[in-house]
Amino acid sequence: MPEFIDNGTRFRLTDPMLAPSAAGYLWNRRMMIQMTCRGFAVSQYMDPEPRKYAHVPTMAGQSFMQPEHRYFAHHPGRFFYVRDNQSGALFSAPHEPVRARPDSFVFEPGLSDMRWTVEKDGLRVDLCLELPEDDVAEIWTATVTNIGDDTRDVSFVPYFPVGYMSWMNMGGHFDADLGAVICTSVTPYQAVEDYFRNRHLKDITFLAADRLPDHVEVSQQAFEGEGGLADPSALQGGRNLAGGDAAYEIPAGILQYDLSLPAGGSERFRLIFGPAHDTSEVALLIGKYLRGDAEAVQSATRAYMAEGLGSFEIESPDTAFNAFVNHWLPRQVFYHGDTNRLTTDPQTRNYLQDALGMVFIRPDTTREVILRTASQQSVSGKVPDGILLRPDATLKYINQIPHTDHAVWLVIATCAYLDETNDRSILAAQVGWSESDRTDSLYDHVTRALSFLAGEVDERGLPLIAQGDWNDPMNMVGYKGKGVSGWLAEASSYAMSLWAEVCEAEADQKTAGWLRREAGAMIERINAHLWDGDWYARGITDDGQHFGVSADDEGRIYLNAQSWAMLCGAADEDRQARMLLAIDEQLDTPYGVAMFAPAYTRMREDVGRLTQKWPGSAENGAVYNHAAAFYAAALYHVEEGDRAYRVLRAMLTEPEAGDIAIRGQLPLYIPNYYRGAWHQHPRTAGRSSNLFNTGTASWFYRLVIEQLCGLRGTRDGVVIAPQIPSDWDRCRFRRTFRGAIFEIDVERVRGLTDREIDVDQEPIDGDVLRHVERGRTYKVRVRLPARA
Amino acid sequence: MPEFIDNGTRFRLTDPMLAPSAAGYLWNRRMMIQMTCRGFAVSQYMDPEPRKYAHVPTMAGQSFMQPEHRYFAHHPGRFFYVRDNQSGALFSAPHEPVRARPDSFVFEPGLSDMRWTVEKDGLRVDLCLELPEDDVAEIWTATVTNIGDDTRDVSFVPYFPVGYMSWMNMGGHFDADLGAVICTSVTPYQAVEDYFRNRHLKDITFLAADRLPDHVEVSQQAFEGEGGLADPSALQGGRNLAGGDAAYEIPAGILQYDLSLPAGGSERFRLIFGPAHDTSEVALLIGKYLRGDAEAVQSATRAYMAEGLGSFEIESPDTAFNAFVNHWLPRQVFYHGDTNRLTTDPQTRNYLQDALGMVFIRPDTTREVILRTASQQSVSGKVPDGILLRPDATLKYINQIPHTDHAVWLVIATCAYLDETNDRSILAAQVGWSESDRTDSLYDHVTRALSFLAGEVDERGLPLIAQGDWNDPMNMVGYKGKGVSGWLAEASSYAMSLWAEVCEAEADQKTAGWLRREAGAMIERINAHLWDGDWYARGITDDGQHFGVSADDEGRIYLNAQSWAMLCGAADEDRQARMLLAIDEQLDTPYGVAMFAPAYTRMREDVGRLTQKWPGSAENGAVYNHAAAFYAAALYHVEEGDRAYRVLRAMLTEPEAGDIAIRGQLPLYIPNYYRGAWHQHPRTAGRSSNLFNTGTASWFYRLVIEQLCGLRGTRDGVVIAPQIPSDWDRCRFRRTFRGAIFEIDVERVRGLTDREIDVDQEPIDGDVLRHVERGRTYKVRVRLPARA
Repeated sequence: MPEFIDNGTRFRLTDPMLAPSAAGYLWNRRMMIQMTCRGFAVSQYMDPEPRKYAHVPTMAGQSFMQPEHRYFAHHPGRFFYVRDNQSGALFSAPHEPVRARPDSFVFEPGLSDMRWTVEKDGLRVDLCLELPEDDVAEIWTATVTNIGDDTRDVSFVPYFPVGYMSWMNMGGHFDADLGAVICTSVTPYQAVEDYFRNRHLKDITFLAADRLPDHVEVSQQAFEGEGGLADPSALQGGRNLAGGDAAYEIPAGILQYDLSLPAGGSERFRLIFGPAHDTSEVALLIGKYLRGDAEAVQSATRAYMAEGLGSFEIESPDTAFNAFVNHWLPRQVFYHGDTNRLTTDPQTRNYLQDALGMVFIRPDTTREVILRTASQQSVSGKVPDGILLRPDATLKYINQIPHTDHAVWLVIATCAYLDETNDRSILAAQVGWSESDRTDSLYDHVTRALSFLAGEVDERGLPLIAQGDWNDPMNMVGYKGKGVSGWLAEASSYAMSLWAEVCEAEADQKTAGWLRREAGAMIERINAHLWDGDWYARGITDDGQHFGVSADDEGRIYLNAQSWAMLCGAADEDRQARMLLAIDEQLDTPYGVAMFAPAYTRMREDVGRLTQKWPGSAENGAVYNHAAAFYAAALYHVEEGDRAYRVLRAMLTEPEAGDIAIRGQLPLYIPNYYRGAWHQHPRTAGRSSNLFNTGTASWFYRLVIEQLCGLRGTRDGVVIAPQIPSDWDRCRFRRTFRGAIFEIDVERVRGLTDREIDVDQEPIDGDVLRHVERGRTYKVRVRLPARA
Repeated sequence: MPEFIDNGTRFRLTDPMLAPSAAGYLWNRRMMIQMTCRGFAVSQYMDPEPRKYAHVPTMAGQSFMQPEHRYFAHHPGRFFYVRDNQSGALFSAPHEPVRARPDSFVFEPGLSDMRWTVEKDGLRVDLCLELPEDDVAEIWTATVTNIGDDTRDVSFVPYFPVGYMSWMNMGGHFDADLGAVICTSVTPYQAVEDYFRNRHLKDITFLAADRLPDHVEVSQQAFEGEGGLADPSALQGGRNLAGGDAAYEIPAGILQYDLSLPAGGSERFRLIFGPAHDTSEVALLIGKYLRGDAEAVQSATRAYMAEGLGSFEIESPDTAFNAFVNHWLPRQVFYHGDTNRLTTDPQTRNYLQDALGMVFIRPDTTREVILRTASQQSVSGKVPDGILLRPDATLKYINQIPHTDHAVWLVIATCAYLDETNDRSILAAQVGWSESDRTDSLYDHVTRALSFLAGEVDERGLPLIAQGDWNDPMNMVGYKGKGVSGWLAEASSYAMSLWAEVCEAEADQKTAGWLRREAGAMIERINAHLWDGDWYARGITDDGQHFGVSADDEGRIYLNAQSWAMLCGAADEDRQARMLLAIDEQLDTPYGVAMFAPAYTRMREDVGRLTQKWPGSAENGAVYNHAAAFYAAALYHVEEGDRAYRVLRAMLTEPEAGDIAIRGQLPLYIPNYYRGAWHQHPRTAGRSSNLFNTGTASWFYRLVIEQLCGLRGTRDGVVIAPQIPSDWDRCRFRRTFRGAIFEIDVERVRGLTDREIDVDQEPIDGDVLRHVERGRTYKVRVRLPARA
C-alpha cells in the first residue's frame, strides 16, 4: 500500500508495476538525479551547461528536459544483479533489467536520500542513494542479506551503464590502483574554439567501491551478450565477469563480488558514481566519500536540505496535504530557487517566479534575483527573455523567441519580496542596464519596465503579444506585429495596480497616479474588447480574430483569461459568476482544471505552435498546474476559499494506489502538467509529465501561506486572514515572519457569525497586526463561523 | 558458411551470431536503408534534409552518420514474431528481438533486395525487402511456411517500431479503411519561420499490409509490457493484440495474423512501411505498391540498379575480387554519385571524388558536378568547403571549418573526366561565380583555383593548412595562420602538373609553363623542408614544428605524405625505397595499411582534433581506406603493381567466417575505415566502421580500371598497360570506353621478356591505341612476361 511514512518526510511504494516511471529526485548545488522506482535514472549536472555522466546507448539530442520521459531496457540506470551460485537464478534490484517478480519490494524516496528494499528467494538487497552537499557524485550503499535458513553463495553485481559517451572517443577500463572503473571520453566538437571551451569538462565517468571486486567488466556489450540485459551472457552458466575493457565501445561500470552468506549474514558495500575531469579528481572523490566519514557527509546533505525546508508548518485534517506542504513543497521550491532549474539562462518569467517562493525560504536569493534581472534590462525598460547567470552563458532555445510579458513578473516578485521582508532598501539599490554604464535605482528600473510595457500596445491600447506571452508556444497570434494578448492586458493592469501601491508608499504620487489611470484604462479596454458574453477572450489575432471565445470549436475558453480578470478586478460579480460556471462546465476534470478546452486537434496558424502539440499535453489543453495555481490565486482573491482549495488539492497526486497508477507519479512534487483533454482522450487524462520544473511550486507555497493560512505582510505589519476550507473544523499553522514566530490556531465555531482574532489572547481590531517584533512568538487564535 | 552466391550478385550469411552488425544496404533516389542480418535498421530519406521515419526510443541527436553504429534491443528494426498457438513458443525473424537460436538462418543481401530465411521448430519465415525506384517506402514480402508434418496454428506478428517521433506531438492508430497503422507527429521546432519551413515534411510513418490483420496494437509499451521485447506481454499466455492506440506515447506498427497452416502450407504477406505527408499520400503508396503490379515495381528497381553497374567486368583468378569489382564496387560508386551521400551540402572534396568514379558509370553526372562546383567558386579562385545542391541548403558541420585543399580535387576530377570522355567542350563551358554575375570558362575557373592555391603559402612557399586539408580534424596545425601541410604541397604540385598537361593540349603555353615551374618549385621546397631522412613529414605546425617525423613518438609517419610524394614525383628512387620500407615496418597491419602510426593517445594541441579520437579509429591512425587508395594509386604510378594489388585487396573483407567476424561486416562495400592501432589495440584492430560513405570507392574503381586493367584514355586514344599481380596467370576484362567495347585478355607467358599487345590480332607499337571508333568492339590481347 503506497503511503507517506516517517511523519511525511518519506514515501513508501511497494509495487514496481504500479507506476513504472514513478520517481523521486535528489539534488545538490551542482546536480540533480531523478530515479524511478525500478532503477532507471535521469541525472544531470552543471559544467557549466547541463551535462550527463550516464548516457543512453545512442547519440542523444541536446534539448531541455522533456515531459513524460520514456524509459527502455538500455536506458541509464543503476542496477544490482544478484545471482544464486548454486541454482544460477538471477534477479536485480531495484527491479530492472531482470524484472523478476520480487517477493517484496519497497521504494522509499526521502527528502535527502532514496531507499529500496527488495526480497527474492530468501535474499534481501537494501539500497540507499545519497548525494554529497557540494560535489557531483552519487553515493550508493548496498547491503545483501541472507534472510533464509541456509548458507548461500551469491554473486552480487552492481551494473552502472555509462552509455554512448562520444563519437570522437569513448572507452573504459578498470583501474586497480583506484579500485574504480574509469570511462573516458572526449566531448564531440568540430570548431577549434570549442576545444578551448571544452578542455575543462568532466569527460570521465567512474564507478568506485569501498572494496576490490572479485571480477569486473567494462564493455556493455560483452556483459550483455546474446542473453540480453534481462539475462546477461556474462552471468550465465556460472560464468564470472571476464575483465574486459571498452575500446571505442560502450562502457559500463560492472563489478562482481562473490559472497558466501550464512543464514542471517549480510555484506555491505559503499559505491560512488559520477563524473570527473581526471583521475586525480577521481582519487579525491574516493577519498572524501568512500574512505571519509560517511556520517559527516550525510549530515552535511541533511543540513543543506533542512535549510530549504522553509519557515512554515501546517497541521490540518488533511494529512497528505500536511505531508506535502510541510516537506515536499518547500523542497520543490528550494530546488528551483537554489539551482535555477540547472540552467545558465533561465527564462526571466521562471527565474522571477521561482524567486517568489524563495522569499519564504531564503529571501536574500529573491533579492539577488530581482537585482540581477534588473541589471540585464534594456535602457528602454524592456525586460529580456532570459537571464544570463554566468559571463559565458548564452540565450538558448525559447529565450531566442520574443515574448512580451516579462515586466509583469518583475513587479510581482518585487512586491512579494517587499511584502515578506519589508526590506524597502532594495528599491534604492543602484542597478546598471544591459547597454549602459549608468545606474539607476531598482525603483526606476521597475517603473521603466512598466512604462515600456504600457507603450507596447496596439491602437486599442491592448498589449501586443509578439511571439508569445506567458504561453510560450502561443507564437503566431501576433507574429505579424498586430495580435494582442487578453491575458497580458489583465496581467499588466494587475501589475500596474500592485506597483502603484509601492509608489504610493514611496510618496511618488505622480507615478502612482499614472499607474492607477493606466490600470483602470486597461480594465475598460478589456471589458470593451475582450468580454465574450460568458467569459473573457484570450486575445485577438494579427487578423483581428478574437480567440478563446464561444465561437471557437477548439480552444474555446482559456483559464488564464478568467483568472487574471478576477485578479485585476476587471470582472464584476455577474461576470465572475458566469466565468466560474463556464470553467466548471468546460475546464474541470477529475485531475484538475484544464488550461483551456477543447484541446486543439489541428494547427491554427493564427494561434501557433501550441495547437500542434498532442491534444491534452503541455500547453495544448493540459491540466497545466501553473495556470491552475493562478486560478487558485484568483479564487482566494475573490474569497472563494473552498474552490481555491479544491484547485490546489487536485494538483497533488493522492498517496494511494489508484491515483498513483493513473497519474504515474508519486505525491512528492507537482508536475508541470497532468494530461487534460479529459473528454477527448479519457484513457490518458491525468497522466503526469513527471517534470518537476514548474513555476507552480512557488505559487502554491505562497497561496498556502498567504491565503489558506492567511498570514501575509504589508508595509505596516501582518494581515491575518485565513481562508481554510469550510469542512476543516480546525487547523494549526506555524510560520516565521520577519524574525518573529507566529503560531496560529484556526477553529470553526458553530453559531459564530463573525471572524474573531486574538493575538496572545488579546483580540485585535480588523485583521492587521502592526509592528511585528523580531524574536517574539505570537500565539494567534482565529475563530471562524462554521459554514452551513 | 558465408559465401558469394548467384554469380557474386548476392551474399549468403548463415549465422546471426557471427557478425551481429553485419549489414547490407539498399537505396533509391530518395532514401537509403542499412539492414543488419539480425533485423536492426538505419534508414534515412531526403525531405529535403536527411530525416528518419523510424526512430530510436529517445530523442536522437542530429548529426552525420556515425561509425560503428551501435544497436540495442529497442533500436529501430523490422521484426516478425511467430508464435505457436499450441505451445506458446515464440521466435522472431530475422533474429532480434527474441534471439531464439534458429534451426537454420540465411541472410542474403543482393544488389536490389535483401532476403532472409529463418527456420525454427518446423516453421519457416522467408523475408524480402525491396525499395521502389523513386518513392520513399520499404516493400516487404513475408512468407510463413509449415515445413513440418502436422497442421500448425500460429500467430504471425510483424512488429515495426516507430520510436520517439517528436516531443511536440506523436501518436498512432490503426486506420481500418486504409488497412494501415498511421503514426502521426509534428517535427519539433520553436521559431515561427520553421513552421513554414516544416509544413511540407512527411511527419507520418505508416505500416500497411495487403490484408487486414486479425488484431493490431499501436502502443509500443502496451505491446512490450513487463515481458520485454524478447517475450512481449501482449503475446504471452495466448493473448491477442489488444487494439490499442498511442496517444503522445511511442507508436509502433504491430499487426497480428492468426494462421492455420497444414503441412507444407504457407501464407504470403506484402507490407509497405515508410513516411508520408498525409493520409492521401499513404493511400497513393498503398495503391502503387500493395495493390499495383509487384513485378513491374521490382523490374523498375532492378533497371535503376543495373544503370549503376558500370561499364567494366573482370574475370580474374580471384573470384571474391571479381564478385566485388563486377557488382558491389560500381554499386557503391553509384550510390555515392547518384545520391550525393544523402546530403544537401556535400563536402567539396567528397563531391568531386565521388564524381571521379561516376565517369565510368554516368559521365554526365561528373560533368554536372564539375560545373556546379565551379559555379560556387569565389572570384578569388577559392573553391568553397561545401557545395549547396539546393537553393535552401546551408553549409553545416564540417563545411563551416576552413580547409585549403579543395582546388586539388577540382583539377583531378576535371582531368579524369577529360581522360575518360575526351569531351573537351567542358573546358569552354561558361560558368558564373558565387559573388558575381559574370561568367568565365571552366578552364579559367580551374586555372584560377590553382592560382589561388599557389598564393596561399607561407614564406617558404609551402601551402597553409588553415583548419584542415584532406584530413578534416587536423585542425590545429595551422589555425594560428602559419602552419603548412606537407601533403597539400605534394597534392598541389601533382594537380599543377596535371593541369599543365591540359593547358598544353589547349595550346596555352603561358599557363602551362607557369604551372610546370610552380609544380617543380614546390617539389624543391618539399625536398628542402619536408624530407625527414627516411620519409616525408606530414607538415609544419604554427610554431615551426615538423610533425609526422621520426622524432615523434606518436603520429610518427603518415601514409599520405609518402603516397603523394610518389604521385607528384618528389621522391627519387632511393627515397622511395626508404619510404616503402618505413611503411612496411610501421604502417602495415593484417587488415591494411594504417593512415599513420602510432595512433595518438593524448591531445597534441599543435596537430588537432584527430589526436583526440580513439586511438586506431577514424582519422587517428585507422586503416583509413581512402588514404590506402591513394597509396595504391602511388604504387601503380611507380609501377609497383603487386604491392598496389595487396593494398587494394586488404580493403575487402574476405568472404569467410574468420575475417567477417573480425571485421564485423560483409564483403559488400569498402568501409571508410577498419580500426588500426594494430600494435596498440590488437583486440579491436580490423573492425569495420560499417560506414559505406567513402571517397575510397571511386578511387578503387578507377585504379582497377585504369591501372590493374590498365585501360585509360588520353587525348589521342587509349593507353593499354595492365599491371596485374604477378601471380595471376591470366585475366580478362571487358570495358566500354568512348562508345567502343574493349575485350582484353591478359596472359603471363613464361620466357617472354617484353610486353606484347595485339589489337584485333594486330600488334601495336607502344601501349597507345589511337582513334577509338564508337560502336566497335576491340579484342585486345596482352602478353606479359611471367615473373620469376
